[in-house]
Formats: sequence, C-alpha cells, structure tokens
Amino acid sequence: MDLFDFISPLDYRYYGRDAKAFELLKPFLSENARIKYLARIEAVLARVLAKKGLCSKQIAEEIEKASLLVTAEEVYAEEDKIKHDIRALANCIRAKVSENAKPFVHFSATSYDIVDTANALRFKEATEKTVLPALLELEKTLMAIALREKETLQIGRTHGQHAEPITFGFAIASYVSRLGGRIKAIENAKNNLCGKFSGAVGAYNASSLFFENPVEFEKEIMLELGLKPSVSSTQIVEAEPMTDLMHALVSCFGVLANFSDDMRNLQRSEIAEIGEEFGAKQVGSSTMPQKRNPINFENVKSFWKQFMPRMNTVYLDQISEHQRDLTNSASQRFLPEIIAALVLSAKRLEKVSAKMSIDKQNMLENFEKSKGLLIAEPLYILLAFHGHPDAHEEVRKLALKALAEKKPLQEIIKKEEALKPFLKKFSEKQLEIIENPEKYTGFAAKKTGQIIEHWKKELQLN
Amino acid sequence: MDLFDFISPLDYRYYGRDAKAFELLKPFLSENARIKYLARIEAVLARVLAKKGLCSKQIAEEIEKASLLVTAEEVYAEEDKIKHDIRALANCIRAKVSENAKPFVHFSATSYDIVDTANALRFKEATEKTVLPALLELEKTLMAIALREKETLQIGRTHGQHAEPITFGFAIASYVSRLGGRIKAIENAKNNLCGKFSGAVGAYNASSLFFENPVEFEKEIMLELGLKPSVSSTQIVEAEPMTDLMHALVSCFGVLANFSDDMRNLQRSEIAEIGEEFGAKQVGSSTMPQKRNPINFENVKSFWKQFMPRMNTVYLDQISEHQRDLTNSASQRFLPEIIAALVLSAKRLEKVSAKMSIDKQNMLENFEKSKGLLIAEPLYILLAFHGHPDAHEEVRKLALKALAEKKPLQEIIKKEEALKPFLKKFSEKQLEIIENPEKYTGFAAKKTGQIIEHWKKELQLN
Amino acid sequence: MDLFDFISPLDYRYYGRDAKAFELLKPFLSENARIKYLARIEAVLARVLAKKGLCSKQIAEEIEKASLLVTAEEVYAEEDKIKHDIRALANCIRAKVSENAKPFVHFSATSYDIVDTANALRFKEATEKTVLPALLELEKTLMAIALREKETLQIGRTHGQHAEPITFGFAIASYVSRLGGRIKAIENAKNNLCGKFSGAVGAYNASSLFFENPVEFEKEIMLELGLKPSVSSTQIVEAEPMTDLMHALVSCFGVLANFSDDMRNLQRSEIAEIGEEFGAKQVGSSTMPQKRNPINFENVKSFWKQFMPRMNTVYLDQISEHQRDLTNSASQRFLPEIIAALVLSAKRLEKVSAKMSIDKQNMLENFEKSKGLLIAEPLYILLAFHGHPDAHEEVRKLALKALAEKKPLQEIIKKEEALKPFLKKFSEKQLEIIENPEKYTGFAAKKTGQIIEHWKKELQLN
Amino acid sequence: MDLFDFISPLDYRYYGRDAKAFELLKPFLSENARIKYLARIEAVLARVLAKKGLCSKQIAEEIEKASLLVTAEEVYAEEDKIKHDIRALANCIRAKVSENAKPFVHFSATSYDIVDTANALRFKEATEKTVLPALLELEKTLMAIALREKETLQIGRTHGQHAEPITFGFAIASYVSRLGGRIKAIENAKNNLCGKFSGAVGAYNASSLFFENPVEFEKEIMLELGLKPSVSSTQIVEAEPMTDLMHALVSCFGVLANFSDDMRNLQRSEIAEIGEEFGAKQVGSSTMPQKRNPINFENVKSFWKQFMPRMNTVYLDQISEHQRDLTNSASQRFLPEIIAALVLSAKRLEKVSAKMSIDKQNMLENFEKSKGLLIAEPLYILLAFHGHPDAHEEVRKLALKALAEKKPLQEIIKKEEALKPFLKKFSEKQLEIIENPEKYTGFAAKKTGQIIEHWKKELQLN
Repeated sequence: MDLFDFISPLDYRYYGRDAKAFELLKPFLSENARIKYLARIEAVLARVLAKKGLCSKQIAEEIEKASLLVTAEEVYAEEDKIKHDIRALANCIRAKVSENAKPFVHFSATSYDIVDTANALRFKEATEKTVLPALLELEKTLMAIALREKETLQIGRTHGQHAEPITFGFAIASYVSRLGGRIKAIENAKNNLCGKFSGAVGAYNASSLFFENPVEFEKEIMLELGLKPSVSSTQIVEAEPMTDLMHALVSCFGVLANFSDDMRNLQRSEIAEIGEEFGAKQVGSSTMPQKRNPINFENVKSFWKQFMPRMNTVYLDQISEHQRDLTNSASQRFLPEIIAALVLSAKRLEKVSAKMSIDKQNMLENFEKSKGLLIAEPLYILLAFHGHPDAHEEVRKLALKALAEKKPLQEIIKKEEALKPFLKKFSEKQLEIIENPEKYTGFAAKKTGQIIEHWKKELQLN
Repeated sequence: MDLFDFISPLDYRYYGRDAKAFELLKPFLSENARIKYLARIEAVLARVLAKKGLCSKQIAEEIEKASLLVTAEEVYAEEDKIKHDIRALANCIRAKVSENAKPFVHFSATSYDIVDTANALRFKEATEKTVLPALLELEKTLMAIALREKETLQIGRTHGQHAEPITFGFAIASYVSRLGGRIKAIENAKNNLCGKFSGAVGAYNASSLFFENPVEFEKEIMLELGLKPSVSSTQIVEAEPMTDLMHALVSCFGVLANFSDDMRNLQRSEIAEIGEEFGAKQVGSSTMPQKRNPINFENVKSFWKQFMPRMNTVYLDQISEHQRDLTNSASQRFLPEIIAALVLSAKRLEKVSAKMSIDKQNMLENFEKSKGLLIAEPLYILLAFHGHPDAHEEVRKLALKALAEKKPLQEIIKKEEALKPFLKKFSEKQLEIIENPEKYTGFAAKKTGQIIEHWKKELQLN
Repeated sequence: MDLFDFISPLDYRYYGRDAKAFELLKPFLSENARIKYLARIEAVLARVLAKKGLCSKQIAEEIEKASLLVTAEEVYAEEDKIKHDIRALANCIRAKVSENAKPFVHFSATSYDIVDTANALRFKEATEKTVLPALLELEKTLMAIALREKETLQIGRTHGQHAEPITFGFAIASYVSRLGGRIKAIENAKNNLCGKFSGAVGAYNASSLFFENPVEFEKEIMLELGLKPSVSSTQIVEAEPMTDLMHALVSCFGVLANFSDDMRNLQRSEIAEIGEEFGAKQVGSSTMPQKRNPINFENVKSFWKQFMPRMNTVYLDQISEHQRDLTNSASQRFLPEIIAALVLSAKRLEKVSAKMSIDKQNMLENFEKSKGLLIAEPLYILLAFHGHPDAHEEVRKLALKALAEKKPLQEIIKKEEALKPFLKKFSEKQLEIIENPEKYTGFAAKKTGQIIEHWKKELQLN
Repeated sequence: MDLFDFISPLDYRYYGRDAKAFELLKPFLSENARIKYLARIEAVLARVLAKKGLCSKQIAEEIEKASLLVTAEEVYAEEDKIKHDIRALANCIRAKVSENAKPFVHFSATSYDIVDTANALRFKEATEKTVLPALLELEKTLMAIALREKETLQIGRTHGQHAEPITFGFAIASYVSRLGGRIKAIENAKNNLCGKFSGAVGAYNASSLFFENPVEFEKEIMLELGLKPSVSSTQIVEAEPMTDLMHALVSCFGVLANFSDDMRNLQRSEIAEIGEEFGAKQVGSSTMPQKRNPINFENVKSFWKQFMPRMNTVYLDQISEHQRDLTNSASQRFLPEIIAALVLSAKRLEKVSAKMSIDKQNMLENFEKSKGLLIAEPLYILLAFHGHPDAHEEVRKLALKALAEKKPLQEIIKKEEALKPFLKKFSEKQLEIIENPEKYTGFAAKKTGQIIEHWKKELQLN
C-alpha cells in the first residue's frame, strides 16, 4: 500500500508522515483501534456474563483472550462474506474459542450495544490521551508567554484601528482564558459520554430473558469500562453526549483559529510585531526568495475551515428515525478526523508559539504612531469626571483638529482656553497619563497575572 | 406600518400574528427589549458609581430614572444623526438628566461593556422566562403520554423495518430523556453567560483612572445584575459562553426535529398509528379534500432546517481580530431569532402532542404483521444459551425459509428435528415468549417508569 | 404595530427604516408581495382556462379583476379560520366573483401549482429589479475606480506579506472580474427558474380530466408568465433551479465579503491606504472619540456570516419525500431574506466605495518599506535566464544577508563577485527594474484595462 | 503501511478496499495523482517556453521527460528539507536535467501558477472520467426502470399521506430529470474551470520580463492543456469556477440523497413496495436474523450528511486576503474527497437500483387502502366544472363522512340528493374515473416517456 495512493490529506500528509502524530493517534483513531475497542467491549461483556453466572469464568476468559487477538484485517475479510461488520467481529471471536464458549460471544447483544459503547470509550480515551494533553501543552506555553510579556507595551486594536494601549502578555492571556474554558468544556463533555446495553430497540428485550433487572446488568458492564450508561437508549445511545463533545472540540478549534488569525495579522509586513521561526534552509516562496510567510498559523485557520462545518453533520446525525435508522453510520465514521485535526493543530500552534519571535521595538514603534491621539479616551473621561458637561463631543472635535493639523492631541489641548479650568483639577497621576499615554495600560499587567492564576488553579497546573 | 410589508416570516407570520407569542417574546427579543436592557445596564452602572463614591446617590437616581424612560424610537432617531448606536443611547439618557449628572452617564464605559452585558442578561432572562417554561411544558406533556402509554404495544423499528416490540410509552420516554438532557444543558449554559466592564480593550484602562481595583468594580456591577463577570475580556466578552448557549438551543432543536420526524412517519397512511388533531373546518389540501397532513410536525422540522445551520454563524463569530473587530455585530443581532424559533416550535409541539390521537388498534395490527418473524431474536439467543453452537446462522436460515413459505417462524421451528433437543431445555417463560411475541417487550414498561422518575427528579417536576 | 416590537433585525433595522430600501424591496420580498404574486398566478390560470374554452372570457376577466384586489390581510384572516393558506386565497377570490365564476377560481390547480410558480416569478423579478441593478451599480463604481487607479503603485500582498508590486486599480479589477462572473451566474440562474402546473402529485391528474395534452396547458400558463415549465415536477417543481439561484447569490455574497475584508485591512492603522468617508458629526466609538472604524465593510462581512450558512437550509430543502413533504415550507419562506441582505450589502458597498478615500502617499510609503527586498524575484529569474544554474537558492541566501545587514538587496548584489558575469548579461531594461522595483508592476495597468473591457462587453455596459 | 492504521474511512474502508474504485479514482484523486498533474504543468510550461524561443526545444524535452519521472515520494522527501512543496517539486525535476536545462524548470512561474492550473485540469479530468460516467450509468439505469414501470400503478404520497395515483415509473422519472439536470450542471461547471499563469501577484510581473504580451503566453499554456485562462487572477485563480463545480457536485448529491430517502421509505415494513437485493449469506442484523435493511440507501444518505456541509468550507475559501493568503491551502486538499464520495455513492445506487425488486402487488394493495377516498379530488373538480358553486367544501365534508362511516366516497355520494343534478352531467369517461380511481393516473405514463426522451436527447444517450 503506497501512502500517496490515498485520498485523504489527513492520512497521506498530516498524520501518515508524522511519526509522532502517528504513534500518538493510531491507538485511538485508526480503524485498527476501532476494531480493538469493539473487541474490548465483547470481552467485557463475557466477563460480566460470567460474573452474573450466565456462563463459566473459564468461558469468559476464553472469550476475553480471543477478543484481544482479533485484527481489523480478519474482521474485514469476514465482513466481505457476510456483509455485516459486527456479526463479522463476533464470528472472528467465535472462531478462536471452544464450542462451549461460542454461544456466549456477543451474547444477548445487538451490534450497537457494542459499537456505541466502544465509541464512547474510544472517544473518551482519545480525548484524555491525545486532545487534552495537546491542549494543556499549548495552554502552558501561552501562559509562559503571557507572564513573560505581561509588561510589554502593545497598542490594542479594535476594528483593525489603534485603540488604547495594552500589553502583549495581556493579549495572550485572553487566549489562555478562552482556551482554558474550552479545556474544561471538553473535560466535562468527555466525562458525559455514555455506553448502552439495552439491545436492538433499547427495551432490554433480549437481556430481559435472563435478568430480572437488565438495567443493572447494563450498569455493571459500564462500570467495568468506566462509562456512564445512557439514561435512555433505543438501538443507539442518545445522540446528545457525543454532540456535546463535538461542539466542545469544534468551539475549541474556533479559539485556535482566532489566535492564528491574530498572529497572522501581527506578522503583516506593516505591523511585524511577531514572527514565525524560519529554518535556515526553509523556502518561503517558489518564486519570491525573500518571503517569510505565517504558514503555520495559516494552516491552522485552514484546518478550522475544513472541520468547523462538520458540526452540521453532527447536528444532522442527531436525527435517527424511530428506534434508529442507519443514516448516521458512515457519517460518524468520520468523527475521529475532527479529533485528529484538533490535536495536530494544537501541537502545531504549541510548537510555533514556543519559538515565536516577538519584536518589542516594532510594538513600540506601532504604538508611537497613535500616541498623539489615543489619550482622547482618558482625556474625555477625566474632563467628564471633573465636571465638563459634554466632554465626549468636545474631545471628538479636538481629535479631528489634531488629525487635521497633524499635531498630538496633548499639544492641541494646551491651547484650548475653555479646557483650562478642568485640566487644573486633574491630579498629578491623571496628568501623567495624558502626557505619557504608554502608561495608560490600565490593569493589563495585573489582570494578566490574575487570569493565569485563575486558570492554573482551574486546570490544576501548579 | 403594515405587518405584511415585512420580509421576515418570523415577524409577519409566526410571531407578529400570534398574540400570545407576541406578549411572551416581546419583552426579551424585540428591538424595544434590546434597548430597554441596554438602558438597564446604564442605570446599574450609575448605581454602582454612586456606591463607589464616584458620584452622588442623587445623580445615580436621576440617571436610573432617565434610563427607564428611554425608547427605541428616540435612540434610533439620535443614531441617525451621529451614526453610533450606544453613544446615541447615552445622549438620550443625558438629555433627560441635569447638567451635574450628564458626565456620569455611560461613565468610563465602552459600548460593549453595555452591549455584551445587556445581551448576557437579556439572553439569560429570555431563556428563563420563555425557553425553559416552553420546554418544561412540552416535557411534562410527553411524560404524561409516556406514562399513559407505557404498556401500549408497538412494534419497534430500526432502518424503517420491524425489529422487536416495544411500547409506545417507551418510545416517547426516549424523547422525555433526550429533551430532559437538553433542558439541563440549556440551564447550565444560560447560567454561564457573562458580562464585562473592562473598557475599550479589556484592560480596564478607563476604570483604572478611578479605581485601585477595577476588577472589583466590574464584579460589583455584575453582582447587581446577577451575572458572572467574564474571566477575561477584550472589548467584548469571551465568545464561548454565548456559543455554548446557542449550541444547547440548537441541539435541543435537533431533539424536537427528531421527535417531529418520528411522529410524521407514524402518521403515514400505511402506518397510521398516531394523528394530529384536525379542526372541523380545517382544510388539508387546496385540491384534495380528504387529506389530513402532519403539518405541525412538518413545520417544526422545517424550522429546524432554517435555524440549525445558523450555528455556523455562531462559530464564525467566535473569531474577532485582536481586541475585536465589528464583524460579529450585525450577525449577532439575529440571535434572538433562534430563541423565538425554538420557543414557537416547543409550544407548537406541546399543543399538538397534548391532543395527538393514538390508534392502538393500528399499532396492534402493524405489530401482527411481523409477529411471525420477530421471534428470531429471542429464539436464536435462547438456542445459544441452551448450547446451540451456531444459533444465529441457524435461525437466519430458518427465517429465510419462513419468509419463502410465508409461514410464521413459530410453525417452521416445530418441524425442525435438529432444534428439538434445544427447545426442550427452554423454560416455560421462555417458550411463552416464543409463542407470544407480544410479550417480548422486555423492560419497556418498567424502563419507561424509571426514565420518567429520573427526569422528574432532575428537573424538579414533582 | 410598533416597528421596534419586531424580532428580525432585517425588518426593524436594515429594511424597515430605510425608505429607499423599503420601496425597492417591498414589491418583491414582503408578504404583501408574496400574496400579490400568488393572486397573479390565479388570474393567469383563469385567463388560460378561458383561452382553452373551459370557461368564458367574461368569467376569466372577473377572476382576474378579483385577484388584483386580494390583500394579505384578508387572506390571513381566512387562513385563521380554515388553516390552509392557498385555499384561503382561493376563498378570498371566490368571495369577489359571481356564482358562475366561483368554480373556475383555482380550477384544477393544487396549492403548489400556485405557490411554486409564484415564487419562481417573484424571485425572477426580484433578481431582475433589485439584485442585478444593485450589483451592476457596484460593478460600475468598481470599474471606475479600477480605471482611475490603474497606474497607482501599491505593494501586492500574499500571506499578509509584501510580495511584488501591483497597482491599486489592478487589485480592484480582480473584484470587477469576480463580481462580473457572479452577475452572469445570477442572470443564468434566474432565467432557469421554473413554474409548474401539473397538479397534486405532478402527474396532471386533474388537468387530464379536461385536456388531451395537459403538458401543453401548463406550457401556455408559463408562456403567459415568461417562465419555463419544470421539465418534470411532483407536487412541487424540481428543487435545483432555486438551489442554483441561491448558490449564485450566496457565492456573489462571498465576493462582496472578500472585497470588504480587503478594504478593512487596507484601512488598518499601520497600512492606512484607503479610508471610509466619515460624516462630520459621526461618532466612531462611544469611548474613543478619535476612532474611525471601517464599519460599512465590517457590516457586509457580518451579513455574509449570517447569510452564507443558509445555503445549508437550501441544500436540506432539496430533499422532499415522495411526491413532497411540507418540511420545506416554513424554511423557504425565509429565502427572500437572502435577497434582501445581498441587495442591502451591494448598495452599502457601492455607496462606501464611491466615496472611499485613497491615500497614494501611504501606498507609496508602504511600498518603499520592501523596496530593498522585492527585487529578489526578478533578480533570480533573470539570473536563471542568463544561465545561473541555481539562481533561486543563491538569491534566497543573499536576501537573508540583506535582511541581516539591513541593506537593500540591490546594494548587496553589487559586491558579489560570483554574480558579476551574469549581471553583465542583463539588458538595460532588465537592469532598470532591478534598480527601480517600482517599475516591476508587470502587466498590471494593461491587464486592468483588459479586464474592464472584457466585463463591459460581457455585461453590456458600454 | 497497514491500511487499517489510517484514520479516514474513505481511505481504509470505502476506497482503499474496493479494487475497482481504487483503480478508477487513484489517477485523479490520490496524492500521487496530484503530484503527477503538477509535474505535467511544469512539462507544458517548458514546452511553451521553447515554442516562444525562451529555451531550446531540447531543453524543453529534457524537462518534459524529467517531469514524467517525478514521484510523490521524492517530492515529499525534498519538501521535508526545504519546507516548500512546489519548490521541492522543481528541485526534483531540476535534479533530473542537465545544467543548461535547470534554469528553465519552473521558469518565471509562481507556485500557484502550477498548483491552481494543475487542480483545474485534475478536477476537470476527474469529472470527465469518474463523476460523469458514474452518474450517466445511474441515469441510464433509472431511465430503464422508469420506462419499464411507467404503467405500474402506485399511490402518490404527499406529506407521507396517500394523495392521488401515479405510476412507479413516473416517480422514478422525476429522479431521471433531476439527475439529468445536475449532470448538465456538472458538465458546464467543469468546462469553466480555469488555469492561470500570471505570477506571484497576478500582474504577470515575472513573465513581463520576457514577453511583450504575457497574457498571450498564459493563453498558450492553457491551450496546450485544454483549459480556459482565468479572466483575472491574483496569485490564485478566481475562486468561483471551483465553487460552482463543488456546488454542482453537492447539489447532485442532494438528488441522490432524496432518491435514497424515497427508496428507504418505500422499503418500510408497512409499505414494502421495493426491496434491496439481499445476498444469500448476508446478515441483516447481528441480533435479529430476520432483518433486511436498506443499508445501501442509508449509506448514501449518510455520505451526503458528511459531504454536503463541506460546501461551507468551499464558501469560506472564496475569501482570501489581498493577492491571497494561504488559509485555503489545507482545506482545498480535501476537495477530492467530495468527488470520491459522490462517485462511490452513484455507483452504489446504480448497483442497488439495477437489482432492486419491485413489489407490484404491495403497490396495488397500498393503493387499494385509499381508493375509497382519493376520488375526492376529481369529484370536487368535476362538480365544480359542472357548476357546483362550492364543490371543494362540499366534498371535504363528504370525505369526513366517508371516513367516519368507513365507507368509500363513491358509495356516499350516491346517496346525496343534492349532488345528483351535477353527477348527471358527468361524461362517461368522467364517471369511469370516479368509479375506478386506479384510472386517475393522469398523464403519468405519457409524461414518463416525455421526460426520458427529453433527457436522452439532452444527454446524448441515444
């Protein structure tokens, strides 16, 4: 099988050729992994059957052992014959056990008792072992940048326009916070994933043949797996817990995309406040040898564009007719791709952020350009505070004047007789800010510290 | 203004002409409501300024009183002049207070301190006063049906095919459960909505001019409003709490859509197990006088198709450049429509469900059609249990035979010599089910009761 | 009815308060318009019935006259009674004609013969009278800017990085071209909208009672209306022609959004190459009196975020069970909103573009910043042309050196002995470009002229 | 590389294991194919350079030959070193040619001259060689069914309710027509795909160094490839032609999904009018041996749910900043998956449709159930025609009576004195339909023939 004969760029480009990503994700997201999880559920079923006295402990052990040996390859070969994937799996296990054990393979289960329970477990563990670590790594890197740069003066921008000063660390802290919130949301969502063991139409028809309380039987299987049982189920578990997990992942992706957009823009030739590290042999453009492009941030934004819309599929898959139709089957097989894309993006961002160069000089120069106007805000508020009845309108006009005369507002106001009585009332500290707008960063540095503290505690990162 | 000159069907058809819906939703979702909420934040700001000693209590009262009087009409008229909506609001309040009070209107605030805080409050209260009551009403109606019909035999369907028997009440209970889950999700999400008072770029630049701890000042305002402050903010609050609320609403809509689809299908001419109530004068078709169409269920599905994709907009709005751009402004103005649509749909479903006719006779007749085959499942499981080494395959072949000979499987198996040794081992209860598949409803009735109990407790409906 | 009691921002804010937009769009997109179009189809039906001899000419005239008088208000009042909108319309017409004429109102028609045909006509005319004129107006404005600025030097940007020089007119011309392409696509799509007159299930059951060739009868009705008949229909016309129109509109919206994004970015404080005109009394920020925000471009982007995802609804509405279900009914009522949003956005862009200020000085200054590096491309290509075996790699290294030494590349290369043999071969014109990169604008100005010519011809704008 | 180590179900399940699909799609959709197409453009560039006299014919031949030899594997290995994919490709070609030829590899081109042109060609040929043949095969199969069953009585259904009779062939013909329309749309769209050769910012900066008319040079390259040149381009071709192709594909997918839904529903246990063929060894359910599920139709619907929402990505990718950003790069790499999914679905539908069993007996029985009521439509129309002033309302009431008394409407009307004067006027043919509603199929059979004729001609299938 030649890797480059494949169609999915995830496979041939982003995952298949990245040895670390491959090792990390394969145990959860590959088809081999899926089959392993399915077999694991069959094994646990046998174990609980034995516990409940339906079969002997020996039989259960036989089945457990056989389940561990099953491979995707043989299951697919069997499916080719009988056209049913879970019956194929059962057949493969059956082929590895004694005649006595055979009847207890998949005993009383319907396919989706296995499939949905396996998926809940698989997505829970994939989240724990791949998504959360990658996000926490990124979170820690961003925290470090935020703390390191919490005093680094930067002009704050709204509408792409210079607004009021902040610090670069403070700007990063807002991503620490948003990412922290998503990490919590993902944790909650993965903990709510549910399995089921209620049979073909959810009414425990088959298990009721053997158990007084089939709901208890279901609960025991879930207990073994560390999963919640679905409060109610049909042939399938309720769609909403998986929908919530996908929402948590996709909305987390949105935060990464926003961060990427910001960094891309800060890398614009005219702004040049940050830079992606560039390899010595790296080529920026096939034709423009001088180019240094924000390709990693662009890549993450592009991934988001590919994967965000897949939430529509997830919402469509909430709908399944009566005790279920199968129209969510093929579509759900693509869900692991969302996880892979998010993990790859988080890792990429972590790597590029950790090595990101920060150009404090350019930050200062950009700030200087607007220095003369941005005191308009504190000026109008202080004038108002000191009794000016129409401070906003007054300052708005003076700002226009400053613009027209290309002079700093500080200079303009000194000549305004009408302002003098108010300016006199300004405290020393207040006057200092008007004269030195670089001091008008408010609570930026302190708030940065508070935000980091908050999330260190919430995420238990101390 | 002629209602029918409008473009939005929500306005001219679904909300504008339904007096009850109009009265219910107007205080939260109309533009008048939006302006009232904005003014309410300005009022609370003044109150807290006074508390903190920035202005006198008298001034605060003046501003509070003025805020209550502001109307959308005058704010819009002012906006037409100055092209800025929140400054227009501030001007309208300023025009109603004394010279002394004027400076303290909107004091130290940036527009989005007001806008985002007002929206958080508005959406929280809209959820509490319109969404949750409508959903709980529907939930209670479904609970009643589930309990009433928990013993009503119905054939369970997977892939649109007869599978195993359930009860109609059990089928409804699965919607009780999914809807219950969404109600909890919506409650959580609305409680997480956040306000902010951190100024133009989120760094408390302006409020730092007056307060040692501007974060405390922000907290006090939120306390007055019963809102959480955003852990971190830029010009705007973090996008994710609103994103989560919208997800909760849209995924709840998905449950309503699934329920509607099921009911539509049960109303098919060939199935005819349930029916929408039909008015004596109601016309089903402009040309087919005999028609009785599931128009209410169709309407809810159609609304879902219109509103579900709007989650894409919500995800797109997570991205705002730097300390914010304005590209989420117009798009967010449409968010109240999602709430309106969900409330209207829940109310419609409640109404139609409460009066829905249930045709037990047809349910029974439909069940009877498959009676002869659906024992294949218990038969194969019991055969396996009693030692048959290849029960599934054996029964699969017998089922094919039964189909070919058009005889019930019960009859077929009696002639199979090979099965006799196994059938002998069947207990009386087990044989009874093979003979009377209508008894093969498993735990359906009991589970129905458990599900209702669970959600009554969770939703405190006792 | 108070305008501000409504929920849809389209109604209360963007359309309802803009007298010109209101007058323009009302005749096509309002509910009154919808009813008028429905009645118009009923009128034409009567006319063709008379032509075919089914009823007298007098009866047809009576019905036509009555149809013109019907108002939305009375139709809705009747619908409230009988719960069927099209039968309500028929009743309203019937109430206005003689007993003899009554039977021929809506004769042999099913509701969707009327509804779908009316919608096809309405959307066709709305496109012709509102969408295309607005887009062509914008197209002409962009053409004028492109031609005016076709020699205005601007740095071309890829990845937000300075790349090679272009002219501002050339940059605008690319939008002229893309918009031109969408105008053609919209024209094609609206011409393909189809009506139908094939009855309740599309098989001409009813009309076959009276006509040897009911397909001919359908064709005559469409001929009267200037519409194509659907090649095949069920109760409804084939979904795809409307889907195509919506795609054409939404993909046109994408071009407007891209243009808006570009203009927003060119307005960044650090770039400042263009500016939205700003009213003398206009307020940029409620708290920062100095701000000048790109609010119009932001608004268009925001509208696009709201309306682009509605294509999902359109795609969902392609699916209708059997001879149709009604789940596309409510959702399709929202389609006029897409048209309204596009027209409002095109008009807004036209207005802001026509008055947009262009700062050639800043364009030049921005270009100057990269002047020293951007000759890397022509240099490497010319070196290659003159026989250098590894020119790209060579120039890449020199560019890094120039960056490190903060010297222009022109200066660096003069000291490179190894390059001398190749540089000697450069023609005078080639050397001139290396020395004066502002001349390296390639075919920008000429291509601008060609693009404008092409689209003037295609769109018949001469 | 183990197939089952992959993540994308497209790769490991639907394409990678289906030898025919693999052979069909690999030459267009695999990464190997992508690299081959890129190299092909480099080859044609050299050829045209020679034609224009920039290099010798011998050099061009050298480069062409080398281009044919390049493999994905070596390009990726080189990219690993230099981090730029197209420069890597150029290096791989360069490594295979003489020193003299080296400078003319990729000469004057920018990466996206190659990438976008290669994609246009690749998607054009993939459409011609894989999409259109698969769709036409399906179209022919549906045509054959439509013609074969054009007289097969079936009840038409609207809202899932029995409406008026049609024929099964007629129902299929509506899919023939809609699919025919999409085939035409896809043909048009693929013919409009454009290439470009306008350099790094679209202004022909580099090619202008060598050509008086670089637009001509671009045109010649496209001519060699059988592609249109983009009317205007930046670094990339205009986004809209590819957007249009994707819309055509996705909207075609919608037709397949609708067809699948219909067939699924006709397979419901209670309807049972059609059936998927079932293998002798095929297992329907892991636990219910009797099940026969519409798994192929479900699969196609499920694929549509996964791929339809990807149009959002396509619309998002219309937006690229200034002369381009790279945020469409990764996302566009996924476009071939849409083609693969559509081809696989069309082939699956063709296969299952060709062998679909049609149960005319059940169709008749279903029809019989409503026979007694469905004459309501012709009855009311004929009564109206014969002068009854309020026929619809009259018949509506009689239909309710028939329902209540469980008698056929035919019987009810005979007892209505008031109707007698009108019924007397009925012609023999008209009375025959009232008595024999199975004859009330209108123009169904004839129209079926007309539709097939129309599309045979349009698609040149004769």
